[in-house]
Amino acid sequence: MAEMVCVAVDAVGGDNAPVETVKGAVEAVVREKRIKVCLLGPEPVISEELKKYQYPLEQIEIVHAPEIIETGEPPVLSIRRKKDSSIVKGMYLVKEGKCDAFVSAGSTGAVLVGGQIIVGRIRGIERPPLAPVIPTLKGVSLLLDCGANVDAKPSHLVQFAKMGSIYMESVMGVKNPRVGLVNIGVEEEKGNALTKETYQLLKGCEEINFVGNVEARDIPYGLADVLVCEAFAGNVVLKMYEGVSGALMKKIKEGMMSTLRSKIGALLIKPALKKTMKGFSTDEYGGAPLLGLKGLVVKTHGSSKSVEICNSILQCLTFKEQKINEKIQGQLGSRE
Amino acid sequence: MAEMVCVAVDAVGGDNAPVETVKGAVEAVVREKRIKVCLLGPEPVISEELKKYQYPLEQIEIVHAPEIIETGEPPVLSIRRKKDSSIVKGMYLVKEGKCDAFVSAGSTGAVLVGGQIIVGRIRGIERPPLAPVIPTLKGVSLLLDCGANVDAKPSHLVQFAKMGSIYMESVMGVKNPRVGLVNIGVEEEKGNALTKETYQLLKGCEEINFVGNVEARDIPYGLADVLVCEAFAGNVVLKMYEGVSGALMKKIKEGMMSTLRSKIGALLIKPALKKTMKGFSTDEYGGAPLLGLKGLVVKTHGSSKSVEICNSILQCLTFKEQKINEKIQGQLGSRE
Repeated sequence: MAEMVCVAVDAVGGDNAPVETVKGAVEAVVREKRIKVCLLGPEPVISEELKKYQYPLEQIEIVHAPEIIETGEPPVLSIRRKKDSSIVKGMYLVKEGKCDAFVSAGSTGAVLVGGQIIVGRIRGIERPPLAPVIPTLKGVSLLLDCGANVDAKPSHLVQFAKMGSIYMESVMGVKNPRVGLVNIGVEEEKGNALTKETYQLLKGCEEINFVGNVEARDIPYGLADVLVCEAFAGNVVLKMYEGVSGALMKKIKEGMMSTLRSKIGALLIKPALKKTMKGFSTDEYGGAPLLGLKGLVVKTHGSSKSVEICNSILQCLTFKEQKINEKIQGQLGSRE
Repeated sequence: MAEMVCVAVDAVGGDNAPVETVKGAVEAVVREKRIKVCLLGPEPVISEELKKYQYPLEQIEIVHAPEIIETGEPPVLSIRRKKDSSIVKGMYLVKEGKCDAFVSAGSTGAVLVGGQIIVGRIRGIERPPLAPVIPTLKGVSLLLDCGANVDAKPSHLVQFAKMGSIYMESVMGVKNPRVGLVNIGVEEEKGNALTKETYQLLKGCEEINFVGNVEARDIPYGLADVLVCEAFAGNVVLKMYEGVSGALMKKIKEGMMSTLRSKIGALLIKPALKKTMKGFSTDEYGGAPLLGLKGLVVKTHGSSKSVEICNSILQCLTFKEQKINEKIQGQLGSRE
């Protein structure tokens, strides 16, 4: 029989917790026999939610965690003080090897800090990047780093490129993934001090398939499978995706509601449009892993619905089975 | 009689030169008696183009500039060597006071370098930012810096905020413009070393109306009139605007063409959609000024059509009449 994968899930993190988080956990265990979920949060709250569903009882366990870390709280302080929170307890389950992975839609800051402080980095990894998958016209790209570490160095970006390549190849099934450096021009000599130096390092890196600089304009067209940048730029890319598409859709809807003629047209295109837009939404792809840690930590969007929680949990199975951490350790790890 | 404003225009810069550049110049002088245009480029080429139009002859002059700087050329080298290029000659016309402004859709690098080396900075200005106007759901925002200077310091960003405020108030007519710092979170303590330090400086700056950090996600919604950031981030914001909206429109069009029902719907919404999208396009707002130089230098999009060239030329009139440079000199200039 295949080995079980145990995933700790923050039941009280995110805007739609505990309703959607618990629902997502149930969906995951119903779909996949090899998954066991530990739901973290106040026991009475989770029990009450679980009563709504039928599921294989042995696949879900409640781990009582009465404290809650709010999104606005200072991350470092809350990780240190709230020992009975879902995030801290979930991280310890991973650190102690009781769970393989931790999934949370809660405070990004607390998840990033907790991952580094509690779960800890693989030896040799300088910085663990947050690596969301973004939709493109050709499929998806992995964007890293997206917020875990500001003021990065060229050597960090080289590690991001290597870890991103391992992830895209093993988890997403992209053979020989193309690595692009996010930059302000395509020519080799373009950019700031960081990108210029990083370019030279990536060019000399034999383990990856470096395809050069990628301008932000070309990111949505899918010119690279792995997009490397420091966290500030990565955050801007990710948030612009959300902001521009949101604003544009709002504008289009206003336009469609402006005349009787366009209102009728809107009714006719609605089903096709909805289907099209689904492929350009980040929701379908589960959460963003924090790569390079001793266990898997996955951050899902704060507004996650059950489908994202479920996908994030299922993603942990591939991560474990594909031995991503062993591969990262093998290629990037050091023994000292 | 009102004073004439003389604008040097690069007739051979950009993807659609000389057809659209010459057409734009003609449109500008036909619309505005107070404008005189000096068209720079190979004389025979420009003469040939001008034959197509009827316009007040005294308002357009040809300045023979046989050399052309291509987009791929190294900017510094080409500015130094190609003394007979439209860009170098145009910059000198401004430097020598023969023209008030220079407009080019040519090589961004060459325009930025030429502006700094030939036209020169106003004393006291550390870095001249490139400041395009971007569309938002509420109107427009000025985004600076967008590519003129990488690896900026906090003091540069403070100057950007002041110059941007003067521009938005005087040229765009926005009273007491709201200044936002592009950052990866809204809280004061968020960001990298540069934004954290800049935040404190902007907060203590009495000449501007600082409204705090603005996340990239909120930029398209128009939360600030002046958006301050260093050039790398600014370039990413600008290019993501273009990339995401372009890719999304492509995706939407595909969706609309996918079924017979949606094709009929598409026909019905087309006019309303076109009108709506026009308000979310950067083309309508003319070019991006390079602020803080001794004369006005305006960079328009490489793919500029005559409407953008014309708008960029007309914009020079407001810039001159509103005495933007005198205001920048007065508020930021130094005497040493």
